Amino acid sequence: MPPSPSELAYVPFVSVENMMGLVHQIGIEKVLCDLADAIEADFKRWELFDKTPRVASHSAVGVIELMPTSDGEMYGFKYVNGHPKNTKEGLQTVTAFGLLADVDTGYPKLLSEMTVLTALRTAASSAMAARHLAPKGARIMAMIGNGAQSEFQCLAFKAICGIDTVRLYDIDRSATVRCSANLKRHGLTIVSCTSGQEAMEGAEIITTCTADKQNATILTDNMVGIGVHINAIGGDCPGKTELHRDILLRSEIFVEYPPQTRIEGEIQQLADDHPVTELWEVISGKAKGRTDAKQITLFDSVGFAIEDFSALRYVLSAIKGTPWFSNLDMVADPDDPRDLFGMFERANQ
Amino acid sequence: MPPSPSELAYVPFVSVENMMGLVHQIGIEKVLCDLADAIEADFKRWELFDKTPRVASHSAVGVIELMPTSDGEMYGFKYVNGHPKNTKEGLQTVTAFGLLADVDTGYPKLLSEMTVLTALRTAASSAMAARHLAPKGARIMAMIGNGAQSEFQCLAFKAICGIDTVRLYDIDRSATVRCSANLKRHGLTIVSCTSGQEAMEGAEIITTCTADKQNATILTDNMVGIGVHINAIGGDCPGKTELHRDILLRSEIFVEYPPQTRIEGEIQQLADDHPVTELWEVISGKAKGRTDAKQITLFDSVGFAIEDFSALRYVLSAIKGTPWFSNLDMVADPDDPRDLFGMFERANQ
Repeated sequence: MPPSPSELAYVPFVSVENMMGLVHQIGIEKVLCDLADAIEADFKRWELFDKTPRVASHSAVGVIELMPTSDGEMYGFKYVNGHPKNTKEGLQTVTAFGLLADVDTGYPKLLSEMTVLTALRTAASSAMAARHLAPKGARIMAMIGNGAQSEFQCLAFKAICGIDTVRLYDIDRSATVRCSANLKRHGLTIVSCTSGQEAMEGAEIITTCTADKQNATILTDNMVGIGVHINAIGGDCPGKTELHRDILLRSEIFVEYPPQTRIEGEIQQLADDHPVTELWEVISGKAKGRTDAKQITLFDSVGFAIEDFSALRYVLSAIKGTPWFSNLDMVADPDDPRDLFGMFERANQ
Repeated sequence: MPPSPSELAYVPFVSVENMMGLVHQIGIEKVLCDLADAIEADFKRWELFDKTPRVASHSAVGVIELMPTSDGEMYGFKYVNGHPKNTKEGLQTVTAFGLLADVDTGYPKLLSEMTVLTALRTAASSAMAARHLAPKGARIMAMIGNGAQSEFQCLAFKAICGIDTVRLYDIDRSATVRCSANLKRHGLTIVSCTSGQEAMEGAEIITTCTADKQNATILTDNMVGIGVHINAIGGDCPGKTELHRDILLRSEIFVEYPPQTRIEGEIQQLADDHPVTELWEVISGKAKGRTDAKQITLFDSVGFAIEDFSALRYVLSAIKGTPWFSNLDMVADPDDPRDLFGMFERANQ
């Protein structure tokens, strides 16, 4: 009999099924609120994080990225791909998993699926930003692009910002039908629209989340009235934008990490020195958010490693005492750390 | 009942126990030979790989690194830490795991422990290099530093280069005793030595593999005779070297990837433009290896991402049809790829 791996060798692993079980047990709206708080707390201590631009491996059909960060105590990274053509082949455009490790020992402390978790953290980040930027008392959101991220966005804005009505639009009508059906039992008033223009009616928050890997104009300038908050999610890689440049010129622009957003976000359409405000500065009181009811605020979101780090730390803490993880024998841990070969030999006895 | 994840959602996972089981089933010497061949084959097509320097996150006590690469069809990365102080706390200095993914879809194809696998691939890489650089017919190797990597090195040089005698030395006598005991049943003549000088007697190959994170002088100039091959493993991070500079000046130096080795290897002691030969050029016939029986050849090895990539591809192919892996539900794969939320909702039914 091979010896059992020691406790140190085990890394808690949260599978997709276990992630869904965990979120259902806690309740998705509470999870979204908790994630928003966790991300906000980490944005407040932004300056102490080790911030590296993501490490991307591009091919003709997509990209595979590693997004590492560290707060000096924990280290985390996410693996994430982006392959827009996958959908046609019955595959996900984006899949992801992530890891947390202890900086002091380098030992992994959590491995987790992050396809579902990324959808949750992206929605929570959007709504957390809107909490600082959207017009006070906003109740109506236009949701342009009704793909895999859309329901999560709608629920996050309900739970975190108090949105009660979502106006859905997608160029693919079946996506709107599906999004609407999925949201039915979640206490939102749902209005399915047949044009982007129609979706704008009365909207105080506009979320754009489409998936084409190209410069598209999901919103034209005339569609955007004064005083709204735009939450632009879909422009998230070089050559992929959603908003007409004129909208950007009328907006106060907030970003996660300028070196990354200038390459990947809506602002790749603007001059390199176009003024933007970093969201963490608003959250920590170093910069102003919305200052005026007539202002158009734009959160040009591309996703950042710290949001994943916050989400992974939340999961590590949430799984304790639950059945929603299994233990992986992922790290060799011989009794005598210099005797790796001895451990190997004894495994054959 | 939640729906079962589809087959696409499963990623084969090789745990530490399964890795050891796999290697025992195939036989460690055959695995080392197969790995040497796999690494050599990939070094032959070196130019088509995407080569990124490793992404390191340093702290006061160690480093956590991500080492990605791709050949255009598969993408791979390794997570590896280096914490020399871990040994004193009963932990491994180095732990590692790795992943392979399909470039075309971005979907993960293999997750594997790499603590054991890294020990195997490092030993196989060393012996593969020696196959091109060591004196013909070498039979005796000095093994300086008898820590966790030492037995793997000895067996790789036996299986791949025909070494029949190893002369062991470590400043810690108990390490030599352990290494010698571990190798007892593996058909090598083992000579335990009480000094580095004694270990050198008759040695045609000298392997240095010590773990101190500092500039040390494991070999002084007078210890190294003409015609030997030096396999220097332990100098593998900034500020960590093992050989006296004078030895380097007498040697023909071979390296994996100069931009990395100039920072991490023995040659950090030399001028930035000191001539070195890339091992892949020797393997593919573009440069000469050993040209003269009196030459001192030095493989200044720091470990490179392509070696891990080769090892992971070997494991992916070797586990097929064996019980040495389990399937991880690591990637969300809804029936309709746009309906991530629907999959989440149905998991609660």
